[in-house]
Amino acid sequence: MPKNTDSTPSEKLEEFGRSILNDVKKGSNPRFITAVRSRSNVVYEEKEGYLTLGGAQEERNFINIAQSKRFMQTTAIAAKCHQFIRENLHTTIRGLFYQLKYSLGEDVDENIFNEQSESNPLIEDLEASLGIKREDLNLNANRKGVLAGNMRVMDSFGGEQLEIDASKQGRSGWAIPSDVDNDIQFVDVKAKYVLVIEKDAIWQRLNEDGYWKKENAIIISPQGQAARGARRLIRKLSDMGLPIYVFNDCDAWGWYIYWTIKTGSMNLAYIGKDIATPKAKFIGVTMSDLEHYEFLNKLTMRASEVDLKRAQEMLSYPWISKHKEWAEELKKVLKTKTKLEQDTLQGPRLTFVGEYLREKISNKEFLP
Amino acid sequence: MPKNTDSTPSEKLEEFGRSILNDVKKGSNPRFITAVRSRSNVVYEEKEGYLTLGGAQEERNFINIAQSKRFMQTTAIAAKCHQFIRENLHTTIRGLFYQLKYSLGEDVDENIFNEQSESNPLIEDLEASLGIKREDLNLNANRKGVLAGNMRVMDSFGGEQLEIDASKQGRSGWAIPSDVDNDIQFVDVKAKYVLVIEKDAIWQRLNEDGYWKKENAIIISPQGQAARGARRLIRKLSDMGLPIYVFNDCDAWGWYIYWTIKTGSMNLAYIGKDIATPKAKFIGVTMSDLEHYEFLNKLTMRASEVDLKRAQEMLSYPWISKHKEWAEELKKVLKTKTKLEQDTLQGPRLTFVGEYLREKISNKEFLP
Repeated sequence: MPKNTDSTPSEKLEEFGRSILNDVKKGSNPRFITAVRSRSNVVYEEKEGYLTLGGAQEERNFINIAQSKRFMQTTAIAAKCHQFIRENLHTTIRGLFYQLKYSLGEDVDENIFNEQSESNPLIEDLEASLGIKREDLNLNANRKGVLAGNMRVMDSFGGEQLEIDASKQGRSGWAIPSDVDNDIQFVDVKAKYVLVIEKDAIWQRLNEDGYWKKENAIIISPQGQAARGARRLIRKLSDMGLPIYVFNDCDAWGWYIYWTIKTGSMNLAYIGKDIATPKAKFIGVTMSDLEHYEFLNKLTMRASEVDLKRAQEMLSYPWISKHKEWAEELKKVLKTKTKLEQDTLQGPRLTFVGEYLREKISNKEFLP
Repeated sequence: MPKNTDSTPSEKLEEFGRSILNDVKKGSNPRFITAVRSRSNVVYEEKEGYLTLGGAQEERNFINIAQSKRFMQTTAIAAKCHQFIRENLHTTIRGLFYQLKYSLGEDVDENIFNEQSESNPLIEDLEASLGIKREDLNLNANRKGVLAGNMRVMDSFGGEQLEIDASKQGRSGWAIPSDVDNDIQFVDVKAKYVLVIEKDAIWQRLNEDGYWKKENAIIISPQGQAARGARRLIRKLSDMGLPIYVFNDCDAWGWYIYWTIKTGSMNLAYIGKDIATPKAKFIGVTMSDLEHYEFLNKLTMRASEVDLKRAQEMLSYPWISKHKEWAEELKKVLKTKTKLEQDTLQGPRLTFVGEYLREKISNKEFLP
């Protein structure tokens, strides 16, 4: 198994191929090791603060009736991705699936794959085994999310070097790419902090108010649950020393989006180390806002069963309930059966959203 | 009821208010007229080719026990929107709802609105009655969609005039705004045609290939079902004389996206005249592609019940089945119970997607 972490993804794939070839030449059983990705092997890395995989590993063997087809499939995936990198072309895990389904030719009855549900976990096997992300294999993930602020990046694209100035994108904002590591370089980031805003509508509100200009902030909307690219971007900005404040609804979905940004998710625990932003803080909206902003009491909604179930679930996660502020917050939700949307802050006047945020930031009122 | 179509939205709102005030002064019952928006009043405008509303109208009266609350609510909406326009600030129909819910103050027990489901139809009442779109009332709709190509626009935003060059947006593309009428001006559009691509992943594939550069095209992905802003943008490009080719999956969702772009939808029939693009053509993928591109036969999927039901439904719409090419296409789907994704064109090589499109365009092989 390739161990050299300085290797490029392409070199890692070549090492992977060579090690299989060596096994064959030696007459031994070709194999590779990958991390167990089931929930039983998901652990919370206490010191750093993210979800990652524990030590459990699995061996994939070629000479094993239950595994040999999957082994062959994995090597076919590795070969295809190596080709994509060589060609400098990107596709998705769906595009990869269709190439593999196509690739045995029309004379062969057997397909390498019949369903995409077969190829997806094997891509993760490769990611976990080689210590790389699928983006490194030229496989784009779904992208979503916009950004505005005093920040310039260089996008190496189609043989050109394009400078994108995130302060010149108007009402649209810069659409965050799938991969912000391999082809995006940061030219300069002048902002003082990053505000992540769950809903695009509220991002647009703040963008129109020139919030990021007045505050010298970067405003990002993941437009709901954050895609891999948006999460990785938030993490990179955090690594540059910028505080990350997340501004979401006070409901199941808003909390989930926050914790996925902060600690990573169980599903992506195998890349949690790179994709989580443990330093992120939750700025609101919160149940305690109901005490500080009287008018909000008129604008709450009844929490749904999903919200209440999620609040209960979060209380059972030690990495959440260890924060007494979160434990209190969630208990309030369970007690009052109430939730609150970030949109409510437009109640008194449209520009109140920004006033609220400024007040909270200057008072350092965050949930951890 | 205001009739002068040259009036600005703000003037129309003022005329609306004045006409109610005049009714009150005259001692007559304040009223206004709006179009019936139920499906029974949706008609297909045969000559132009879009779904619109028929002649049925409804009167809203203040002195009518069943209507007086809704009448009051509608005037409250009109007043708020007038204020948003005056302030030059935008929000969403959700933001408007929260302002109205807030606005009676904390001393009054009664709310103007309790649920957003009450305010939404009244906004449509106003749109239909005044002959304007909600975007004209500074109410942003959900936005979605990206664009790349030889086109420049001016975005009047935050007191600045920002020129956006859609050929310099790199891998991201220009994120299409909610409203492309009031604050976006077209500086120049040099492209020869517009290609609308259902899936963002395939848009990214073509963008990476420099398809729009080589072809001098504009490529748009609505990223699934087209939002109002994307539909309106496609229509405006069509009005400039550019051919519009739509490239979708051959399945229920792909067809639905296409027909929504082309004829508009029943739900938005009240603005169908402005939002439909009757000249749009369907480039693929189609069932007939299976005859021309042998390899695709290996990559089809089983049509779902939804796909088959939708195909049947489309055959029952006279504005679709009048096109014999569509009738044949849909009958093939029903007979073979097969569907086909646009992603399959990556089977032989990632760049084949562009080859397919070039061939189809040069052979003028479109469905109407």
